[in-house]
Amino acid sequence: MQDLMVKILDKINSPKDLKQLNISEMNTLADEMRQIIIKKVNTTGGHFGPNLGMVEATIALHYVFNSPVDKIVFDVSHQCYPHKILTGRKEGFTNPDKYHKYTGYTAPEESAHDLFKVGHTSTSVSLATGLAKGRDLIGGKENIIAVIGDGSLTGGEALEGLNNAAVLGSNIIIVVNDNDMSIAENQGGICNMLTELRENNGEVKNNFFKALGFEYHYISDGHNIEKLIETFKNVKDSDHPVLIHMHTIKGKGFEPAEINKEPFHWILPGTLDHLNDMLGEESEDYNSLTKDYLLNKVNEGMPIIAINAATPGVFGWDKTFRDKMGSHYIDVGIAEQQAVGMASGIAKRGGKAVLGIMSSFVQRTYDQLSQDMALNNAPVTMLVYWGGISEADATHLCTFDIPLISNIPNIVYLAPTCKEEYMKMLDWSVKQNEYPVAIRVPMMISYSGEEDNTDYSILNKFKITEQGNDIAIIGLGTFYDKAKELKSYIKENLGINATLINPRFITGLDEEMLNNLKSSHKIVITLEDGELNGGFGEKISRFYGNSDMKVLNYGSLKEFTDRASLDELYSRYHLTSELILEDIKKIL
Amino acid sequence: MQDLMVKILDKINSPKDLKQLNISEMNTLADEMRQIIIKKVNTTGGHFGPNLGMVEATIALHYVFNSPVDKIVFDVSHQCYPHKILTGRKEGFTNPDKYHKYTGYTAPEESAHDLFKVGHTSTSVSLATGLAKGRDLIGGKENIIAVIGDGSLTGGEALEGLNNAAVLGSNIIIVVNDNDMSIAENQGGICNMLTELRENNGEVKNNFFKALGFEYHYISDGHNIEKLIETFKNVKDSDHPVLIHMHTIKGKGFEPAEINKEPFHWILPGTLDHLNDMLGEESEDYNSLTKDYLLNKVNEGMPIIAINAATPGVFGWDKTFRDKMGSHYIDVGIAEQQAVGMASGIAKRGGKAVLGIMSSFVQRTYDQLSQDMALNNAPVTMLVYWGGISEADATHLCTFDIPLISNIPNIVYLAPTCKEEYMKMLDWSVKQNEYPVAIRVPMMISYSGEEDNTDYSILNKFKITEQGNDIAIIGLGTFYDKAKELKSYIKENLGINATLINPRFITGLDEEMLNNLKSSHKIVITLEDGELNGGFGEKISRFYGNSDMKVLNYGSLKEFTDRASLDELYSRYHLTSELILEDIKKIL
Repeated sequence: MQDLMVKILDKINSPKDLKQLNISEMNTLADEMRQIIIKKVNTTGGHFGPNLGMVEATIALHYVFNSPVDKIVFDVSHQCYPHKILTGRKEGFTNPDKYHKYTGYTAPEESAHDLFKVGHTSTSVSLATGLAKGRDLIGGKENIIAVIGDGSLTGGEALEGLNNAAVLGSNIIIVVNDNDMSIAENQGGICNMLTELRENNGEVKNNFFKALGFEYHYISDGHNIEKLIETFKNVKDSDHPVLIHMHTIKGKGFEPAEINKEPFHWILPGTLDHLNDMLGEESEDYNSLTKDYLLNKVNEGMPIIAINAATPGVFGWDKTFRDKMGSHYIDVGIAEQQAVGMASGIAKRGGKAVLGIMSSFVQRTYDQLSQDMALNNAPVTMLVYWGGISEADATHLCTFDIPLISNIPNIVYLAPTCKEEYMKMLDWSVKQNEYPVAIRVPMMISYSGEEDNTDYSILNKFKITEQGNDIAIIGLGTFYDKAKELKSYIKENLGINATLINPRFITGLDEEMLNNLKSSHKIVITLEDGELNGGFGEKISRFYGNSDMKVLNYGSLKEFTDRASLDELYSRYHLTSELILEDIKKIL
Repeated sequence: MQDLMVKILDKINSPKDLKQLNISEMNTLADEMRQIIIKKVNTTGGHFGPNLGMVEATIALHYVFNSPVDKIVFDVSHQCYPHKILTGRKEGFTNPDKYHKYTGYTAPEESAHDLFKVGHTSTSVSLATGLAKGRDLIGGKENIIAVIGDGSLTGGEALEGLNNAAVLGSNIIIVVNDNDMSIAENQGGICNMLTELRENNGEVKNNFFKALGFEYHYISDGHNIEKLIETFKNVKDSDHPVLIHMHTIKGKGFEPAEINKEPFHWILPGTLDHLNDMLGEESEDYNSLTKDYLLNKVNEGMPIIAINAATPGVFGWDKTFRDKMGSHYIDVGIAEQQAVGMASGIAKRGGKAVLGIMSSFVQRTYDQLSQDMALNNAPVTMLVYWGGISEADATHLCTFDIPLISNIPNIVYLAPTCKEEYMKMLDWSVKQNEYPVAIRVPMMISYSGEEDNTDYSILNKFKITEQGNDIAIIGLGTFYDKAKELKSYIKENLGINATLINPRFITGLDEEMLNNLKSSHKIVITLEDGELNGGFGEKISRFYGNSDMKVLNYGSLKEFTDRASLDELYSRYHLTSELILEDIKKIL
């Protein structure tokens, strides 16, 4: 792309500068901002459609309100780039050398204009009710604004928040950014209700928001800065809860994204340079394998159903797949609790519920896993994606799912190391009716080349893949490869032929095997791709606590990392063969 | 109470028998059922008001629908006694010898008429959407009915469920049992919306349920069996989602409970025999201490606020306390996610949020603890009540909070062993601005008799309370007393003067102290009042994994127990001095 002209933006270093502009200049500014967002996101990857849709509204918010005294909380912060540009961080979008300086989410350490670190959806209204209540306790007078998308509105915390915001009795302004999309299509009664409001310019017989007690305002064109400013001015300093419902266009200003919203929600670097390749052929991976399996079962007449909470893209459940699945597919919206509750009900009624969920979002449904699913032994199959140590930002870490899931009774949590195991586990899980099962789906495919004949109904049987002595290495799931590598390294450096173990079961110990190791082994090493605290390895340590066996557990520490490199993390966690060898030498 | 006449009930052994009765007989039956519920609950304790309010509606449901083919899911199942009486379990209410035979919640192992084990609120609609979807996949034709109270309706899962139920496109019947109460007063915009509907006989300008897309029916008298039957018949076999909103009276038929609803939600044995004692003087306990502390801080002008999600009774936050706190008190309704999100917002705005929550319900808000609170380092004080091994039913176990909370980064989780420590921890937590803090409030008060001068801002410092050698016993929180007892028992039986340690911090290890123990100790024993898997002791085992120290961890196993006696549990978990001594002898 050619160099971009940002004449107006050049003059904007804080929201204060914005207040000098007239409407025409602000419209020009919006164009400039949009161009730098498109260029930057196409270079680094990131949230695309949501940010393009919020340019004008963000300008209007900062024109009318007085941030950071007035406080704006952006839900999920998928749409915070315009806000970052206007609050002193435009270099992160205009200067390629600074493209990686700022996180893609709101981050208080970057700016006083960011109130919270936010990356999971549906939290802004709750957080804003807290800011408002804190203000009232302390005697402040500022405006509290929560911006929330129509997709985020279907999440439990958002709805609990609306119920409370409505009766707050003092200033709180909720801006519903309705672009008629969640990450994929939005779902449910709330979606239909919003559609009806949009189609009737905000005038309907049964207004959901008014029913809750909000003063309601509708803005039909959320890209009309003049109208936005007028409405925001109108509600500024309100002494009671107000809800503004504005209609925006996701991907506004970039036609392919306006037409085809889902793939442009978040894009990879270079996406815009290869628009025609976006629907290219898939090679075999865990996504394609899972999709093929599910479609086969539907064709065989099994009452199977693929369920997810608004993130079908994570699993490659694209439109083609969804169409083929038909009534055997459901997206419950951003509503992980509902996904698990519903899956449990389906399983209890004899349906075969296969629930896809990203590791980081399992956190949004602990009680349902425990009460709806595990306590009721509902034979749901839950596929947990992206679990493991990663370079993700602090809000999307996927290192906590093992402590979370594996300490709940009744759930069988499995960790395949290759395609053959994964397919066998999936098939076993779908066909059995005894247990809630979770499978930690690896990110990268690998092959053992051997058919897996394991009967997974015999729980907690670990597999010795290479018998040795002195040292046993237990490599869980995605870290089985690290265990193999470590075995070689130990052989080279210590001349010890270590035993290699693939445990496969995260949720229980093979006590017989562990006991047998005592006779010919001095050290057991565990490797897991996730948090050590509360995880898999500690259970091995506890098991051997009354014996002479030495145990070394490796995994991530209890911390929120933020875009740290894998090299840095593996080094800090001693997750390299070299560093583990040093630890071994200390106790040999 | 005198012996009760149950002439009609004598003939009712299943819902089928009910279908032979006329309205007059059903009204008599309702009176009989009410009387046996009152007598039974006054003997055993249990949910009182909610069950009295659902007698007629349950009769009508079973008269019209064909359970267990038609499926009725009772939310939280606080109101399932009438259902149990009508589905073959009346002996549990008429025969004092069988009073304890059945759990107070729905339980599939008791009856095919119970679909799920349920004891946490706000799940019925989600579960029912699953049953309905499973039915549709399999080609069934039955009715799926979810019964949900107005209080439960404010919970995230319920609202996520409504959003999905509304677009299910097939039969689902949601019965909202509106008694204008949660456990305490109901809260929020939804509560006000329901009030408006009741006051206008279901006819209002903005109907919340219609806005979501439901066919809506209002029943002004939920105790009128004829009207209930008429309405249920009207919607039976509906091919689309229907919502029936019925107005009932919580505690119906027992005047003191109708007038004073909150204390009669759940009653202790014998409550009805001593009605005048219900508001007696309190003796000092952690509830009274906490209340006095909070009121003092309010009086000193601190912007402190007590927050809870619909269970003020757990903490003794009665009406007198709430009135005194005024705007420094908030009940967010059944909405734990909102409670944590709001508390985080308050803390970030400089308010001092003190959130009360029962251990079992912490499960309902994992992601908010992680993202809203911990990731943002919001200095909230969370008081976790009732944590520990107990004789509770399977749905209300309080053994999982340590694995849940303590593996989330940034949170400081404290375990006081006595009043002196608790008060010091509470005061430190409220005044500091660095950390999200949770305190595990013991059930029973105890006193050390010594002022606690600890500076809790120095994290993870364990305290050696009695220095000994060979064996070190670490007794966490409520199990510190067990550790003291074990020390004496070891002295008597082995002549060893064990070291006694009060760790106080759940969320981190005192590595210096643990290292120092190596020189003069061979065994470290940990005792914790909760689940071992993912808990406190395993971290000690991991720490010593590379050393010669033997470690024995004691706590509960990973299991859902159900009204098991403490004796049985302590025996199974080796939580007695005698059993621990046996384990010690094996490794000495």
